[in-house]
Order: sequence, then structure tokens, then C-alpha cells
Amino acid sequence: MGKDDVRIAIRNVGVCGSDVHYYKHGVIGPFVVREPMVLGHEASGVVVAVGENVTHLQPGDRVCMEPGIPDLQSRASLEGHYNLDPSVRFWATPPIHGCLTPEVVHPASFTFKLPDTVSLAEGAMIEPLATGMQAADKARIRPGDVAVVVGAGTIGILTAASALAGGCSRVIIADLVQEKLDIAGHLVDSIIPVNIATENLAKTVGRLTDGWGAQIVFEASGSPKAYDNLFDLACPGGCVVMVGMPPKPVTLDIVSMQAKEIRIESVFRYANQFPRALALLGSGKLNIKPLISKIYPFNDSIAAFDHASQGAPGDVKIQISLE
Amino acid sequence: MGKDDVRIAIRNVGVCGSDVHYYKHGVIGPFVVREPMVLGHEASGVVVAVGENVTHLQPGDRVCMEPGIPDLQSRASLEGHYNLDPSVRFWATPPIHGCLTPEVVHPASFTFKLPDTVSLAEGAMIEPLATGMQAADKARIRPGDVAVVVGAGTIGILTAASALAGGCSRVIIADLVQEKLDIAGHLVDSIIPVNIATENLAKTVGRLTDGWGAQIVFEASGSPKAYDNLFDLACPGGCVVMVGMPPKPVTLDIVSMQAKEIRIESVFRYANQFPRALALLGSGKLNIKPLISKIYPFNDSIAAFDHASQGAPGDVKIQISLE
Amino acid sequence: MGKDDVRIAIRNVGVCGSDVHYYKHGVIGPFVVREPMVLGHEASGVVVAVGENVTHLQPGDRVCMEPGIPDLQSRASLEGHYNLDPSVRFWATPPIHGCLTPEVVHPASFTFKLPDTVSLAEGAMIEPLATGMQAADKARIRPGDVAVVVGAGTIGILTAASALAGGCSRVIIADLVQEKLDIAGHLVDSIIPVNIATENLAKTVGRLTDGWGAQIVFEASGSPKAYDNLFDLACPGGCVVMVGMPPKPVTLDIVSMQAKEIRIESVFRYANQFPRALALLGSGKLNIKPLISKIYPFNDSIAAFDHASQGAPGDVKIQISLE
Amino acid sequence: MGKDDVRIAIRNVGVCGSDVHYYKHGVIGPFVVREPMVLGHEASGVVVAVGENVTHLQPGDRVCMEPGIPDLQSRASLEGHYNLDPSVRFWATPPIHGCLTPEVVHPASFTFKLPDTVSLAEGAMIEPLATGMQAADKARIRPGDVAVVVGAGTIGILTAASALAGGCSRVIIADLVQEKLDIAGHLVDSIIPVNIATENLAKTVGRLTDGWGAQIVFEASGSPKAYDNLFDLACPGGCVVMVGMPPKPVTLDIVSMQAKEIRIESVFRYANQFPRALALLGSGKLNIKPLISKIYPFNDSIAAFDHASQGAPGDVKIQISLE
Repeated sequence: MGKDDVRIAIRNVGVCGSDVHYYKHGVIGPFVVREPMVLGHEASGVVVAVGENVTHLQPGDRVCMEPGIPDLQSRASLEGHYNLDPSVRFWATPPIHGCLTPEVVHPASFTFKLPDTVSLAEGAMIEPLATGMQAADKARIRPGDVAVVVGAGTIGILTAASALAGGCSRVIIADLVQEKLDIAGHLVDSIIPVNIATENLAKTVGRLTDGWGAQIVFEASGSPKAYDNLFDLACPGGCVVMVGMPPKPVTLDIVSMQAKEIRIESVFRYANQFPRALALLGSGKLNIKPLISKIYPFNDSIAAFDHASQGAPGDVKIQISLE
Repeated sequence: MGKDDVRIAIRNVGVCGSDVHYYKHGVIGPFVVREPMVLGHEASGVVVAVGENVTHLQPGDRVCMEPGIPDLQSRASLEGHYNLDPSVRFWATPPIHGCLTPEVVHPASFTFKLPDTVSLAEGAMIEPLATGMQAADKARIRPGDVAVVVGAGTIGILTAASALAGGCSRVIIADLVQEKLDIAGHLVDSIIPVNIATENLAKTVGRLTDGWGAQIVFEASGSPKAYDNLFDLACPGGCVVMVGMPPKPVTLDIVSMQAKEIRIESVFRYANQFPRALALLGSGKLNIKPLISKIYPFNDSIAAFDHASQGAPGDVKIQISLE
Repeated sequence: MGKDDVRIAIRNVGVCGSDVHYYKHGVIGPFVVREPMVLGHEASGVVVAVGENVTHLQPGDRVCMEPGIPDLQSRASLEGHYNLDPSVRFWATPPIHGCLTPEVVHPASFTFKLPDTVSLAEGAMIEPLATGMQAADKARIRPGDVAVVVGAGTIGILTAASALAGGCSRVIIADLVQEKLDIAGHLVDSIIPVNIATENLAKTVGRLTDGWGAQIVFEASGSPKAYDNLFDLACPGGCVVMVGMPPKPVTLDIVSMQAKEIRIESVFRYANQFPRALALLGSGKLNIKPLISKIYPFNDSIAAFDHASQGAPGDVKIQISLE
Repeated sequence: MGKDDVRIAIRNVGVCGSDVHYYKHGVIGPFVVREPMVLGHEASGVVVAVGENVTHLQPGDRVCMEPGIPDLQSRASLEGHYNLDPSVRFWATPPIHGCLTPEVVHPASFTFKLPDTVSLAEGAMIEPLATGMQAADKARIRPGDVAVVVGAGTIGILTAASALAGGCSRVIIADLVQEKLDIAGHLVDSIIPVNIATENLAKTVGRLTDGWGAQIVFEASGSPKAYDNLFDLACPGGCVVMVGMPPKPVTLDIVSMQAKEIRIESVFRYANQFPRALALLGSGKLNIKPLISKIYPFNDSIAAFDHASQGAPGDVKIQISLE
């Protein structure tokens, strides 16, 4: 353990879609699992020991951790977006082991103390939440903006909650699966679910914005069809944030984007979002408890993975507890 | 009534400090009341008739109005800050009559329909609220920022509420008067009152931000002493927003501002904030009802002005109703 | 002539691609020429008379004019982007007459005095230049940024010149036509032409940026193939500005955009750019004289249109003079 | 020498005001020279050896170096402003030795290769230039902005040059000393010197901006009187950048700042500016050669310090060469 590191006993680990994918297929794009690899990158834990330079943490502190360690001397890091450093070492991205293991040693600067009111289960939700926060941050929300989130998967719901806590007046969330919409709609009052199997999203957005359009549109589905009318949802001068990752290039109507001078932002993981997410959770402005669908004990990890892999429509996050 | 105008029956009018000042002294700086002038610029009402070009309003609509009409052809207006046009005609700024009168004719583009859930009394609060919104907007809040508001007068409290609804995780509000702090503290959970008669503000901010400082500091008191340690409250890279108007130039420590590369923003009324304020009020994210201290009938207007002029510490806003 | 208008004797009028298109085909998208229509929207002239409210202009002033008159009461205008108001009345967009005519009456607020050092021919270039300026402005250039412009047509070259005057250290401009590249390359020292018929653009950009990529990429060709590797040209955290208008939707690789968290901006004409363009031209930082290929007298207008319509590769701008 | 370091033979070292101050007084504020300390923090050199991880530099490369090494794990560094990390170790700030010495070992990530067209003498100017670049960057110049620089000392002139290269159309520079103004005025065409001993600066700015004011005002004098009418120089919505460091708190008229909703930015050294400065120097857009007043050989260092300490009005930068 280095002078700037801490040793952490792992407590809760969330099962992410990428974990399930490696578990079942052993590969994601260029990343191939060639040797046995520990999974897991969404974790909370308790500090066991701290390096001699570490001052902001001490043994016994309940914490959560950023799973990616960039090269801090890289140009991307120096310029303030360490998430874009290609040499990042990220938990459970081969060949780097993940955190579904009793103990990890981690840089203190990427380890964050949980507020007293935040549970270890919620702590293990900060990692996916940080992606929603990055999306909300990139959108440069102005107080009272109306947002649309296309896609009510885990990241879509967390983006909607982040956008609302982050300054929007209302968030309209769209999906084809009613169970997902029900979860989103019950999370906070000002999230408005729209089932696009039965309802025209552009019309609803128009109605709720006096025909002006939403200031912000988060694409969080990655579904190729979603990109067809994305710009119809936004107002003149609005912003579209690309959160979802479509399986292949998509078709965009540049001219209709130009007619409204729309700005597109894109999101790759997160930088400096863990403290922001914890601040909102700690103050009670953000509530993600209802999104933790089930927690399995460590010995039932295979059942947890099987559960996550089946993806029942009403499930958001499956976790594994090592306590 | 012009083609782009509406005729409005006035309902509620808030009494502002400037109204009281003209009422008692007849002058504010270069603005001198030389002939009888109707007071009032914080108003709601009901549309009575609309000009032939007006499409977004119709008779019977409950509305609130921006009190300043700029020259839309001015350079400031074309560049998007019509509030900075010096040729603006502003209600109850001599020689322009105010709105404490049965009916006004007003440009439709500066008249805004109230959401169904917003009362006419709340509607007459949008004008002062818009200043708080302008401050929150200028701060460029990022989701989860911690803010400090120095001064818990009407504008200070409205700024705190706007900042919280606009994306902050917590707002620390400071004043010497406990009654004002009580009102602020009871308005929303995440507003933390600090009585600086008995508590060191910089220390409290340090404690609540792990020694980092607040991302945003709103100066809303105008008190010369408040500027002495303003930069101690902010974090590196933070922002100070000048909302309060001190009676004369103040002393600022430029070198301590530079050590943190602090940015200062300043606020002059508001531009394009009425729709934002109404969106937050309509969605329930912002609640200003407890700030309406008392509503007098029109016939008791003199009592209303006397009440406002005495300024009991626990009073926020006195209104007059014309219904 | 209204109180806020000026009467202008037209001097130079540039022939735009849209003029040629209406001249030959009578239609652009939804805009159909149904009755005889005066062409031309790029103009300079001399003030003949001014309305009684006009103070910044007087008869004899040499001026250029913005060709689009928006509704200043529209929401888009109030929010500072009057170019996005759909009710804009734009010269030579049917059914609105253009300016290739002896005299026009125009709002003074959209009429701009030419600096003494700027000729009437240059004055008629401000309109297309303003689109390049809008692109450079939207890019939010930081001092010393490297930019790439894809496409060396008139707008591409004007965008390159604007970006360079607007703060870039170097602009790499790419095209298939050597004559266009020669013009761009001779305009300013720091414009680097790249003929993509023989040279790999991404490799050249990599070499000139130490492998980091350009901070800004302007797509100014509208060519569907150009969008294929647009994100390869940009650095992490970079910006792509959509200036060119492709004839139909294009394919974009969202995932490679996200890997660099690239931001896309888009441009629709311009707002508040005429004074900026004139300031740069007046100070000598921007030189567009070499881009005026030929000026025809008014009586030879048909020859001018024929010339412009043939589009010799080395021609940038054809003008008609009414003097 | 660590794996990420390079060993550099020093070539040119500029003499900064702080060097002279330590040389004469042995103390600057809280920083006291208690033991013999090498001076100098503005340096160029030639790489002698590189650590095993270093790929972008090799022996023989001509380079310049950032003199401050922050803790890259600090919150300020992670958030992208490593210049604000209070634990930075900065050359020639006691007790850290400076670089006026034959060889230094330095992190490769803070060592920058000079373009072929940039001399070693110019290389040693990058450090002060970077402060001017930071000021220009913070101002968020939009293409064609007019700027005012108050104070034509070394940093004032470098700020003016950076602002012009960084997108301004014109820079008005003001001082009481004609010799300094002459140097600034001869550096680039679009720098307009104004001697405030004989000329009213606000009037001149008004005349050159049609009465609108400058979009950007850089305060680079630190002179208490300069702050009195700073806001009169700026246009509505303009920006004032605090570059100069006044000896004690100054008086600012908040209300006149608010009337124009002026934004104030402040500068503390620089972050990520060396590559930008080198890009502008390498492309020829920025020329600082005339600012190197005299170069002394190392053996005459005392004469160099005496020269710099006398501060002849026409001198900008004195250097020492170790070649």
C-alpha cells in the first residue's frame, strides 16, 4: 500500500451490464478476458488502513470508490478531464481485476467518505449515478429548464434524477416498457413518464412546453430509432446529450439540428462527479433507494448474476453484499 | 391597445422596498418623483382583452408581468440582455406609472400565464423571485454545488430558494436577525441558517464543505462589512455573485480573490427569468407561499405601505389585493 | 420609411449560391418562387435618408445590412438568438424581395456603418463572412487552439479566416480542389491547405498536433463522406461545428464521439456578428479582399449570374455593382 | 531522476520582478529566504537525458519548463486548475531553489518542446507570457472583441499581445510612461497606446467603440487608482480581468458594475497555457522578440540583476544566458 493509498474492506458491489456481459461472453469490443478476472466496479466499503500521506480518511470510514485510475500526468488529466485519458486502469476491464473481492488497495484521492445518512448500499450506487451526474453537468442546466430523457434503463433513470436535482423543473422520461416508467415516475414527483408505445413523445413535449420544446434532451437508450426525431424534442438553442451507446453509427439530420442551432454534448463515464453525487444524496435532494431492487449475499453471487442477466423489466439494480 | 398588447385587470401587487422609499422620500438616486405617480411593479392579474397579433394569451388567463419594457432594437436587447438597455421603461420608476391601478395595457411578450397550481398572490411574487433566479442563473450552478447566501432579506431568501431549486445540494444563509433566518430555514430542508451574531460564517462553511469552501457565494445584503471576507467563503475556482447593492463603493481584497481565481458575477434585475420561475413554481420544486406575510385589501393600501415601511423582522412580503 | 428605418442606395451585391439556385430552379426546399422576385441578400450601400429616431447613422454613411429581420418580440429574439426566430423575413427568400435593386428601406438596427478602411465591395462580403464568424464564435475558441476546416468553398474559407482572426494559432483547411486550397493558403500565413485527394487528413492533423488532434473541427463541406471520420480529427474534449448543410441525414459514430467527450455545435446564419466582422476587418486582422473574384456592372447582371452558376474552381465571390 | 522526469541543461533565464525583490529584500509576503536560494523561474534549456517513461521528449530537444509542480492528486488539480493547488512547489519561491543553475531535473509533463522557429531566448519568455495567456483565456474572448489593458508593464504588454492573438480586433493599452507605450504600440499594429497622463482613457475607449465600451478590460497595473473607473471602460455584459496585484484591498463601485452586469475574472499564474503560447509563437501569430531588452552572460548575472532592478522605463525583459 503506497503512501497515498487506502486499504478498504469491500461491502456492497452492484452488478453492471458490463459485468454481466463479461460473465456471459468474456468480451466487450476490444476488451477480451484472457485470464480469470474478478468482476465488479460499483462498490462501497469500510476503510481498514490509510497510507502516511492520507489525511482526509481514517480507518472505520464508510466510503465509495471511483473505479478508474488515470495517469494524472497525462494531458487529458492536466486539462481537467481525467476520464478521457486512454491509459486509465478501470476495475473489471481486462486485464484489470474488479472489486468483487474482500479487500482492495485504492488511491485515497479516488476514495470518498459517505455522509452519515447514506447507506453502504446507496454508496455502491454512486458509480452509475456519477454517469447520470456527468450527463446533467455537461448539459449545463439553467434553473428551471425542462428536460427529456429517452430511455428508462438504469442510466436513464439516474440521469433523470440527476437532472431534476441539478436544476430542472421537470423531466419527461420515455420508454416502451411500462414497468421501467413506473419506477421512474414514482421516484420523484417532477419526473413525468411517457410510454412511447402508445404516446407521441414530440407531441407530449410540445404540450408540456407550450410548443417551445425542451431545453435539454438526454439520449439514454442507445436505440438506433431514438435518434430519428431527437431534434424535434428540443427547443431553439437547446442541448442534446448523448449518454446511450448505440451498437453502430446512427443517422442524424444535421439540417434540422442547425435550424435550432442545437448543441450536442457527449458523456464518457465521469470526472469529479462523486463528491457532487454524495452532496446531493447527503442533503436529501436525491433519493435513489427505490432503485436498489435486490441485494444478494456474496455466497449467492451466481444467483445475483443470473438475476441481473435475465433483466426483469421492473429491476433496476442488483447488488451483492460482502458483509 | 396595440396589436401586440394585452389589457390586464390587476389582482395582487407586492410592496417593494423601492415603493416604500418613493412613498416616504419621493426620490431614489437620480430618479425623482415630480408629479403624482402610481406605485407598484410586482403584479399579477387577469387578461381582459388581447391585441390581434396575440396568440399565446386570451381573456380570462391569470398572468404576471415583467415591469420593465426595453427598447427591443437596442444593442443590449439584440445581444440577449434586454435588462441592460438604459432606455428601459420600468413601472413605478419616475416618470413611469406603476401598476397599483385597476387595469394596465402591457406587451404580450412580457406577460406570462400562471400555471393552474400557482395562485395570484404567488404570481405577484414572480417579480422579486426573478431577481433571485437571475442570480442563480448567473452563478452557473453545477449539480450538487454548495452555496452561501449572505443576507436573509426578501431577495436573499428568494436567491437561496432559487439556488436550491436550480441545482445546489445545500444553501447556507447568513444574517444577524434570527426571525429572518427562521423563515429561510423553514422554507426548504436544505437551507441551513447561520446567525452571524453568534457564529463564525467562514468556519461553518469550512465545516460543511470539508474545508474546501462553497462553490458559490451570493452577496445579498449590500452591507459594507459583508465584503470583507467574502472570498474566504468560496472554494478555489468558485464564484461570487453580487446581488445586494451597497450604498457606496466597497473594499475588496483582489489578491485573495486571485489566489483562488474567483469569478464575480453581478445582477441587474433579470432577463428571460419569468418563464423559468414559473416552471419551477408550477412543478412544485419551488415553494414561496410562506414568504407572503400579509395581504391587504386595496382600500387599506396606506396601512400596507405603513406595515411594509416598519419592516418587522419576521415579515418578508406585504401585498395589496385588488380583487 | 418608419421612424427607426433608413433608406439606402444599394452599391455592391454579392451573388450567393442560393441566388443562383433560385435563378436556375426557382425553388429551395419549401421555398418556392411563385411571383417575380428580386434576388440578392449580400449588400452594401450608402445611406440616403434616416428616420427620426435614428441617431447612429446619417445620409452619406457607407453601410452594410443584415438581410434577415426577425420578430424582436419572439422568444428566440428575447433570449438572444434572433436568428432562430422562424418568422424572420429574409431578403430573397420567397416571397420576400432581395436587395439587387436601386434602393431599400431597412431597420437602422440592422444597418452597420463601414469603417473608413473597408470598401463597399468588402462591405457586401460581410453577410457571408458573418456565417464564418458565427461558426468561429460558437466554437468558443481558446487562444492558440488549432482548427481544421473541412471544405474550402466560400463559407469554408471565410470560416477559416474567422477562426484564425478569432484566436486560433493555425487552421488546416481540407478540400479536393487544388484551386480552392491555393486561394485559402495564400489568404493568410497560418492557413495550411491539405488536398485530401492525395493526403490523409487525419494523419496530417495528427502530425501538426503532436498526435493530440485539433481542438476545433469545422465541417463546412456538407459532403456526406466528410462525416465519416470527423471525430478522428478532434482532440479529447474537442469541438465539432456543423456549418455545411448536407443534402440528407448523415451517419455519425456516437461512440467515438463519446470516447473523446466531443461537443457538437451547429450554425444557422448569425446573430450579432456584423459588428464583430467589421471590427476585425477595420483593424486589419482579417483580409477578405482576395476573395472577391470579379465585380460586374449592374447591366451585366445576367453574365454575373452565369459566371457564378458555372462555378469555376478558382472563383470565390462574384459581385454586381450598382454604382 | 525519476522515470517520468527529464534532465535539462539550462540556457536562458529571465529576470522577474519577484527575483529582483528576493535579491534585494529577501522576502515577499509570507515567503522568507532563510537559506541561500537559487533564483530564476523563467527558463529554457536543452534536454540532456530522459526517464524511462518519457516518450514525447529526447536528448537534444530545446525546451521550456513550467516552474510550478503541483500535487496532481489534489482536488484543485483533479478539477483542472492545478495552478490553484496550495501545495505547489514553485521555483525560486523559498524554500524551493530556482533554475538559474546549470542543470535541473524536471517532470516531463511540465517540460515543453520549442517549435523550430522559436529561439531559446523566446523560450524563456513563455513563463511570463503564460500569465498573459491565462488572462486572455479567462476573458473568454469572442472573435472581434475590443479589449483595454490598463498598465503597460511586462505582464500588461504580454496580456495585450495574447488578447490580440487570442481573438480581439483591437487592444487599447494605457499607461503613464510613454516609453512603455511605445514598445507596446510598435509590437503589433492593432495595439493602440493611450498615455493617461494626457488623455482621458474612458473617452478614448468610448470613441473607439461607438460609445458602447470595451468587451474586455484587463487590469494589469495593480495601481489602486486604476480601480476607480474600471467599469466605465467596459460595455454592458462586459468582462474585467484582474491580472495586476494591488498592494492592499481596493475600492470597487459594485452598483456601477451591476448596472452593466459586468463579470470579473481573476488570474493566478496559469494552467495548461504553455502549449497554447508555443502554438501561437510557432505559427507566427504572436511576436515577443522585441520584448527581450538585453541578454547578459551568466558571469554578469549581478549586472543583469542590477539592470533589472533599476527598471529603465524602456526595458521589458532582461535575461541571463548560460550558453
